[in-house]
Amino acid sequence: MSDYTLRATVPSTFDKAENAIREELADVGFGILTEIDMAATLKAKLGVDIPRQKILGACNPRFAHRATQADPSIAALLPCSVVVREIDDTTTLLEAFDPAAMASLSPANAEIADVATEVRGLLRTALDRAAAR
Amino acid sequence: MSDYTLRATVPSTFDKAENAIREELADVGFGILTEIDMAATLKAKLGVDIPRQKILGACNPRFAHRATQADPSIAALLPCSVVVREIDDTTTLLEAFDPAAMASLSPANAEIADVATEVRGLLRTALDRAAAR
Repeated sequence: MSDYTLRATVPSTFDKAENAIREELADVGFGILTEIDMAATLKAKLGVDIPRQKILGACNPRFAHRATQADPSIAALLPCSVVVREIDDTTTLLEAFDPAAMASLSPANAEIADVATEVRGLLRTALDRAAAR
Repeated sequence: MSDYTLRATVPSTFDKAENAIREELADVGFGILTEIDMAATLKAKLGVDIPRQKILGACNPRFAHRATQADPSIAALLPCSVVVREIDDTTTLLEAFDPAAMASLSPANAEIADVATEVRGLLRTALDRAAAR
């Protein structure tokens, strides 16, 4: 169990869980700007089979702007990756890069710490709501 | 100057630098799977003007597979973001999330450390070559 991610276990199919986290992220102000189908990519490139897995790139423009104004390098940690991973037919894991871990990479920057705290709360809310539907 | 990114200053226009890093990343085995035009996004969403900036999502399927087999949570740190940022008309900064910093978030995992060392070397090579063209 990593300590650099926020997680939620969703008692539903992959497709329902993906749809749920997309809607809940939108509800707290995050758009999904990118999407990588990891299972399809690894199958196509390496011929290996892994359980269904997507990496969604979530971004809240206001927070992204505040963070990059405070520390331009933080752009290299964006967007916030939110992973949807199939555990079995009725269980899906959602896992996001924890903004607190991002902030730990840019220590002694109070504005980054503030943004991280706010974003962390919003991501936690979205994950919890997606799991509770 | 952050210590969680790898950087290169390229003495050329934004477009040439972007093209150079795309080609050099491809040459060391990294495809660009995603792209976010940060300047266009912030202009559209917030009405603010920032210098040209793109976040490219680079991925080497073999290393991504090895890393996620060793620590599934590491998917939340993927893809490797490589930022292209305009400094002025003849200077562009390239900045990538340093795999060593990624690995520091998943300590005591020897396989992650190995992958990070290899990927770091490849990204460093791509950045140096892009800057030297």
